[in-house]
Amino acid sequence: MDYQAILDEIYKELTPHLNDGKVANYIPALACVNPNQFAMSITLFDGTQYNVGDTDTLFSIQSISKVFTFTLALNIFGKGLYKRIGVEPSGNPFNSLVQLEYENGRPRNPFINAGAINVTDALLNHFKTPETTYNAIQSFVESISSQQKISFDEVVAESEINYGHRNIALANLMKSFNNFDNEVNDVIDIYCKHCSIEMSTQMLSRAMLYLANHGVDPITSKRHVTEQRSKRINAVMLTCGHYDASGDFAFHVGLPGKSGVGGGIVAVVPKIMGISVWAPALNKQGNSLVGTKALELFTTKTGFSIF
Amino acid sequence: MDYQAILDEIYKELTPHLNDGKVANYIPALACVNPNQFAMSITLFDGTQYNVGDTDTLFSIQSISKVFTFTLALNIFGKGLYKRIGVEPSGNPFNSLVQLEYENGRPRNPFINAGAINVTDALLNHFKTPETTYNAIQSFVESISSQQKISFDEVVAESEINYGHRNIALANLMKSFNNFDNEVNDVIDIYCKHCSIEMSTQMLSRAMLYLANHGVDPITSKRHVTEQRSKRINAVMLTCGHYDASGDFAFHVGLPGKSGVGGGIVAVVPKIMGISVWAPALNKQGNSLVGTKALELFTTKTGFSIF
Amino acid sequence: MDYQAILDEIYKELTPHLNDGKVANYIPALACVNPNQFAMSITLFDGTQYNVGDTDTLFSIQSISKVFTFTLALNIFGKGLYKRIGVEPSGNPFNSLVQLEYENGRPRNPFINAGAINVTDALLNHFKTPETTYNAIQSFVESISSQQKISFDEVVAESEINYGHRNIALANLMKSFNNFDNEVNDVIDIYCKHCSIEMSTQMLSRAMLYLANHGVDPITSKRHVTEQRSKRINAVMLTCGHYDASGDFAFHVGLPGKSGVGGGIVAVVPKIMGISVWAPALNKQGNSLVGTKALELFTTKTGFSIF
Amino acid sequence: MDYQAILDEIYKELTPHLNDGKVANYIPALACVNPNQFAMSITLFDGTQYNVGDTDTLFSIQSISKVFTFTLALNIFGKGLYKRIGVEPSGNPFNSLVQLEYENGRPRNPFINAGAINVTDALLNHFKTPETTYNAIQSFVESISSQQKISFDEVVAESEINYGHRNIALANLMKSFNNFDNEVNDVIDIYCKHCSIEMSTQMLSRAMLYLANHGVDPITSKRHVTEQRSKRINAVMLTCGHYDASGDFAFHVGLPGKSGVGGGIVAVVPKIMGISVWAPALNKQGNSLVGTKALELFTTKTGFSIF
Repeated sequence: MDYQAILDEIYKELTPHLNDGKVANYIPALACVNPNQFAMSITLFDGTQYNVGDTDTLFSIQSISKVFTFTLALNIFGKGLYKRIGVEPSGNPFNSLVQLEYENGRPRNPFINAGAINVTDALLNHFKTPETTYNAIQSFVESISSQQKISFDEVVAESEINYGHRNIALANLMKSFNNFDNEVNDVIDIYCKHCSIEMSTQMLSRAMLYLANHGVDPITSKRHVTEQRSKRINAVMLTCGHYDASGDFAFHVGLPGKSGVGGGIVAVVPKIMGISVWAPALNKQGNSLVGTKALELFTTKTGFSIF
Repeated sequence: MDYQAILDEIYKELTPHLNDGKVANYIPALACVNPNQFAMSITLFDGTQYNVGDTDTLFSIQSISKVFTFTLALNIFGKGLYKRIGVEPSGNPFNSLVQLEYENGRPRNPFINAGAINVTDALLNHFKTPETTYNAIQSFVESISSQQKISFDEVVAESEINYGHRNIALANLMKSFNNFDNEVNDVIDIYCKHCSIEMSTQMLSRAMLYLANHGVDPITSKRHVTEQRSKRINAVMLTCGHYDASGDFAFHVGLPGKSGVGGGIVAVVPKIMGISVWAPALNKQGNSLVGTKALELFTTKTGFSIF
Repeated sequence: MDYQAILDEIYKELTPHLNDGKVANYIPALACVNPNQFAMSITLFDGTQYNVGDTDTLFSIQSISKVFTFTLALNIFGKGLYKRIGVEPSGNPFNSLVQLEYENGRPRNPFINAGAINVTDALLNHFKTPETTYNAIQSFVESISSQQKISFDEVVAESEINYGHRNIALANLMKSFNNFDNEVNDVIDIYCKHCSIEMSTQMLSRAMLYLANHGVDPITSKRHVTEQRSKRINAVMLTCGHYDASGDFAFHVGLPGKSGVGGGIVAVVPKIMGISVWAPALNKQGNSLVGTKALELFTTKTGFSIF
Repeated sequence: MDYQAILDEIYKELTPHLNDGKVANYIPALACVNPNQFAMSITLFDGTQYNVGDTDTLFSIQSISKVFTFTLALNIFGKGLYKRIGVEPSGNPFNSLVQLEYENGRPRNPFINAGAINVTDALLNHFKTPETTYNAIQSFVESISSQQKISFDEVVAESEINYGHRNIALANLMKSFNNFDNEVNDVIDIYCKHCSIEMSTQMLSRAMLYLANHGVDPITSKRHVTEQRSKRINAVMLTCGHYDASGDFAFHVGLPGKSGVGGGIVAVVPKIMGISVWAPALNKQGNSLVGTKALELFTTKTGFSIF
């Protein structure tokens, strides 16, 4: 299949739509991103990469980091993690407190904000200090993406902390139900840092290979997670990866994926490739509008789909 | 792979658990089903079938019929169907009215009761009378399962109608939002009949082949639905097929599937097989408890999973 | 106090606002009422009546009838009635199903639709047939208003029945929780009839005297309800009489009262008078917009308030 | 009327029930209060006081303080306060976040936690520093109760702050909707202090006289709030003073009142008296169980009721 031609076609078709949707505006540092940017990368198991657009531009991965913290926490806590969080779609917006109150402070899944904050709280239990915890997350992301050094954007992280009243509310609500162990500020600090990690679509499509290959990086042969857990992370991405548009993404794209409000999306074609796309303007559920369309075009043109 | 040995193992492992869970008791006709029954069938693309247990015993397919009415309605209305219903997980029980009220009478997806009743209402628009509508549904099910004659259980259907206050409430709520066209009684009548269709696991595993093969029955070569729609039906089964336990099913089983309160479940392994399992006792979300475990064991033992 | 002068002032101040708000449009028979009508009547304990506007024009009393059916049911069932319904404000719109689902089919209070339909169901248990039940309600209203003959508008009643999908949904939802005894259609039929009773503000202000006088009609000396129950009916009017604007009415008007979507409102000044006002255009919670303002002006000018 | 005899009777009737219900246990400092305590005081307009039980024992007034902060804020901001909060019953528990999320961070009324925290935030806007704000509240309470010096319990206040995750969640949720101006910690600090103010039933029944007398203290002749606002505060107490048991309190007691989780309740008989009762064990909605019964007995025996 001529992947490069397919990516070029997608880029051409979608360029006129880059200004549809709306860049995330809940924090100043993200609100000023130029929406006229687009990047799409795929990485095959032999390392071959196909790219179109600004594929070496770094952007804020935001909620895509939740895939990595979930993997890391599964490696550490195994099934024990499910005492704290579930794996069920929420049917609600990413930052909703409603279900959390009705369900006694147990987040529906690790990919809504409450769930990811709870996972970060669990990681802090294990790694002891905020600094060592964040460093462990960063090291893991470096390892799966075969990068020597990634880092987070300090301005974005600080902005997230200063405007993160909703996340602080979620953490305190979980704490009131005794489903949160550490100081709220410490956990939110780590959470905002890992959401502010900067990567390019080249790096992210590479980073997804372990989930496309049942837990083993096909290039380095390093196992990052067990086969069963790798499949289950993909299952949770499919059912919960895009908040209250998860069903729509499964329906139109047909691949496990995870979006972030920075405009990035990652996805996997099991046994074949890792994918990443980036376009900053979002739809009303907070997922990249053009990015979602790019992936839909990709699976339509290639026939790839898990279904 | 020695499918027969695998099915035998599953049967042996699960027999001690047949009395866990609770047979559906909302209608008298289902409440008296003996929970000590189990059946599991798989059908390959060449027609080979593997069976264990009471695989020719007929049981009430209940909500499994929603897969067939959804397919039929997609064939008739195409995208127009999504004006009436969505494809998003609900995060709520199968018979909840809450979301329907908040979302102006548009059901989240075709596999919760409100959605399936709405689909039946749409089919009645097309087929004109309750009798012709039910007949069209039955004919379609006969066609996909290569059966000369299937039928519904009149006692169960009548029981459903008499005790179906919740479904009547759902229909009237949709009608109050102008998202329902026909007489409520007519639609509920058809709906209860198609839920009361009786099939065996042999018949149901056969009936799922078109969805395992992108819309074409691999034995008869007859196309029952387009490739794209076939994939999308599978996507909706995966995200919404088991009510508020859909995420859990995707996580543990990893296959698109649909359950019914009669204790049956259907599933597909794309490009490989159709599956059906039956065990009457249910978990608290209304899905077959042992049936779900049987499918989890099956995917664990075979390594089959779409992820 | 010069009541006539006060009523005249109110009429003058509010006439320019009669077209604010919106006439009830959920049934055709009410949608065509001319909004340029206004009437206000007060009746003192000695029978003296003060009137301004169209005070002998009959209008549809709608939910005001819930005060009368609640009184009648309390006389029959006493505390037993509270097994079926509560006395707590709902905080939700008049026709919401949400709380009813969360609270197992027990309506919050007798003045939201679900509660009043449930009370009608209880009355049918007692009076045996729909006809005798409706007749008993009508007789009671004739008795408290000292009218020889009141009647309901058949066109409105039929219109309510035909467009009453939401009410049918509420009744079926209660039935699914076993908190509803009779045929839904029978109960809705009686309910729509008593909502369609026609009265004037003269008649309604007279009819409220028993609640202004702790249960005894001060003119006929007839006791219609015990003193304790009379006070409690007033308490429920104050906390629940205006749906999700009950707090606002208590705050601005400061009297126990009950509104109907026909544009009528009744209220009592304990130990002093019965009041009724009518202006067809409604605010967004479904209460007469100008009627509420008229009562607020009345209590401001007279200093009457239970607080 | 022989008030002393009535109070003595109530005390005798309720003493066997002091251990029904459950002392507030969400903070250690309240959990260890001995439930076998009871006090009831009434204060007439001439200053005469009737007492039974431990009426000079100080206890934590908790949410009763919300009446005083609401009065103070109305004096400062007038109608402007209603931009921030409403006056409608919530129909939900005192600390629920659900409605606050659905209604964009505007609390339903000043007597649920979110509303009272919001009022405290408004007071901090006016009084500039946490210290001056708390002092202004304390001075106001001293003024209305004619006490030279009241104070808060530092152990309780600190305990509230340390275990107040739910309140911090509410404040942050309001802040995320831009309906909160100051630092969360500062506001929660003031809020926990005014909730921890200690008073006796003698002091509290005295403090309610201004609300029983349309804003003017009948002993000192000092006006504490306008007549209209005084009536409206009473209206909000009646409809919202006891969380999701407000309707029940209005129904059974029939007086405007406000409860606190310390077991205290205040109430007014307009134009006649201020009342306070204290019994630490609570019902499931968080109101004093025996205290509520005491007030119901009091209005039954005296015939006092605003209805």
